Amino acid sequence: MRQTLRSVIPAGEIEARLERFQAALTEDALDGALVVQETDLVYLAGTGQSAHLVVPAQGEAALFVRKTLERAREESPLARVEPLRSLKHLPAALASCGLEGGRIGLELDVLPAAAYLGYARRLDGFELDDCSAALRRVRAVKSGWELRQVERAAEMLSHVHEWMARHARVGMTELELAAEIERELRVAGHQGPIRFRAFNNELFYGSVLAGPSGAVPGSTETPIVGPGPNVAVSKGASHRRIERGEPILVDLAGAWEGYLADQTRTFSLGPLPRRLLDAYEAAREILHRVADDAMPGVTGAALYERALELAGDLEGFMGAGDERVSFVGHGFGLEIDELPLLAKGWDEPLEAGMVFALEPKFVFPGVGAVGIENSYLVTGDGAERLTSAPEDLLEL
Amino acid sequence: MRQTLRSVIPAGEIEARLERFQAALTEDALDGALVVQETDLVYLAGTGQSAHLVVPAQGEAALFVRKTLERAREESPLARVEPLRSLKHLPAALASCGLEGGRIGLELDVLPAAAYLGYARRLDGFELDDCSAALRRVRAVKSGWELRQVERAAEMLSHVHEWMARHARVGMTELELAAEIERELRVAGHQGPIRFRAFNNELFYGSVLAGPSGAVPGSTETPIVGPGPNVAVSKGASHRRIERGEPILVDLAGAWEGYLADQTRTFSLGPLPRRLLDAYEAAREILHRVADDAMPGVTGAALYERALELAGDLEGFMGAGDERVSFVGHGFGLEIDELPLLAKGWDEPLEAGMVFALEPKFVFPGVGAVGIENSYLVTGDGAERLTSAPEDLLEL
Repeated sequence: MRQTLRSVIPAGEIEARLERFQAALTEDALDGALVVQETDLVYLAGTGQSAHLVVPAQGEAALFVRKTLERAREESPLARVEPLRSLKHLPAALASCGLEGGRIGLELDVLPAAAYLGYARRLDGFELDDCSAALRRVRAVKSGWELRQVERAAEMLSHVHEWMARHARVGMTELELAAEIERELRVAGHQGPIRFRAFNNELFYGSVLAGPSGAVPGSTETPIVGPGPNVAVSKGASHRRIERGEPILVDLAGAWEGYLADQTRTFSLGPLPRRLLDAYEAAREILHRVADDAMPGVTGAALYERALELAGDLEGFMGAGDERVSFVGHGFGLEIDELPLLAKGWDEPLEAGMVFALEPKFVFPGVGAVGIENSYLVTGDGAERLTSAPEDLLEL
Repeated sequence: MRQTLRSVIPAGEIEARLERFQAALTEDALDGALVVQETDLVYLAGTGQSAHLVVPAQGEAALFVRKTLERAREESPLARVEPLRSLKHLPAALASCGLEGGRIGLELDVLPAAAYLGYARRLDGFELDDCSAALRRVRAVKSGWELRQVERAAEMLSHVHEWMARHARVGMTELELAAEIERELRVAGHQGPIRFRAFNNELFYGSVLAGPSGAVPGSTETPIVGPGPNVAVSKGASHRRIERGEPILVDLAGAWEGYLADQTRTFSLGPLPRRLLDAYEAAREILHRVADDAMPGVTGAALYERALELAGDLEGFMGAGDERVSFVGHGFGLEIDELPLLAKGWDEPLEAGMVFALEPKFVFPGVGAVGIENSYLVTGDGAERLTSAPEDLLEL
């Protein structure tokens, strides 16, 4: 456990991130960006305080803070961290960074429409465009410092077999089991909130799904969703009692200093039917062989196609029937849904420093789901595993 | 604990909500609304599946579902729950509800700008406007069925004194104590995620803050924020160790069937300094006297002014110095930040059926925060308390 109360993101990190973001803005023909989403502010300015970060494509970025200036100054290494008392001073703030017109990028994928329309009224003379693609490209490639946080998040997940042995019992509900595992994670230092960038998505630690629950599809583009506790939170663990001889899928996100890691393991109380064991072994085989192919230059689409080819005509791969999703993995970092995607049509090549979660899973309606997921780092010539829990399906 | 696996929102509820929403659309001169946010879909259609809900100001609403149609049909009582394979069919979907032009409301406060711009391109011939004010007005007044869920959420919080007695120890970190309390909530049936409507806001169960942590302000418009575990999650409990003789503020949101309740209590391990005990008693007195004044017809602004008057020149009320916030309470329901506001300038009168959390708190920089919060229901002639944990400050 960390003993210090507060650590900040090193100045060199922020400097390098801003430099890469400025290059990406130039690539996307943007003259600058106005960044306001909390997680993006943490990434680019080192603080999640309420603020506007102005990043000109060339020149010095500056942070204009609404609340609190003191915390923003403590946390951010930027030289210019200044108060912004009212949005009417925003044009002057932009001008002070050399931006007096031109194409300005906003985070259109997450910025609420009302806020966007408000900026459009205030920033007369600017052309407003989207900087989220540029930002997401930059964030996809992790630094050494970021990787050390991801490794701590991954390490948090390495004890899941002990936790399951300690807590999982026939007759407890999925939510009761989730309560125990979530407590273990929290005691291990888990930060709590997990950020999901996509609209209408959320992740609460992950999901603990037993038997048929593992095969309940839902609103999101993921192979496993689950019933959830109620119609308002219609994903994840439910009030259903765990029975003997059914698969228990435990998909968890570790979280340390804002950074995530993603891992799934499969368990059971008592023996599983042969076809589920076979499907688990197939998932594990797909995991290893796709991971073996991952290296700089290979596209996410190629890895997805490789997974499909390895799964062949096996039943239930990445969802049953019409519910099959067209992906097998995803990037992560400060958010659980970062780039790259290992998905149909994702033709961007992997680069060294990217991290991704690879999650081959098989779904059997009415019976359950089995599968495995590891997080990986793309190295110079391959992919290095980051999550280290034992890979065997554990029968308790 | 609920034994059934799935309960749905009664058809009569959805019918009444849609009727009130249609009246609100008419009041706001909107011809209809296109609703897509998950929580709003749950409220108006009874399902959080990925879908577009079309609500004409007059006539029958229909739900057009992307994923999954089966779950949406199981959960929603609407007669028309139909597939929508592609957004290009959206104009036809609107037309099938009698909307072939006119002013359509979107949830501009939560809808991402990119999605808004996409709708603007597809819905040529419509004037796009904001239906969030109409929806939030409707949601502010709870039905009997909704109140029963809120009561269950509030009941979940009534054991906090037992939990604190069981777990709180000198030398444990705020996060370790939070882990135990969160587990107790989860075992009591807490749904996990708590929805926050405002951009850049999140709430993870609430916050457990000891000593100086209680007085650390942050990015949000709340009197209490806390340091959080790291710069990425810069709110709530921290890695700081709890000491003897400091106030421990425990602010928690219960959550049942999507519905929330909000409660704060103050604790200590060993005796507190006199001025903190006095401040706690002042908070409790303000709580009672403001609650006594709450009834239909009274505005949120009047209750806020009353709280200010009662606090007089007492130090640290609702934040220290420049960090004082201009509110003393807020509505809640499916989201923690619903209407009404008990805040400066909130000139809307309370109505019977509204619920609100009232949270007088005192902040002492470097020392901590003390305070109390209850949730209330506005009745025909007053306000009825919903949260029932003992109100005494508990010295353990």
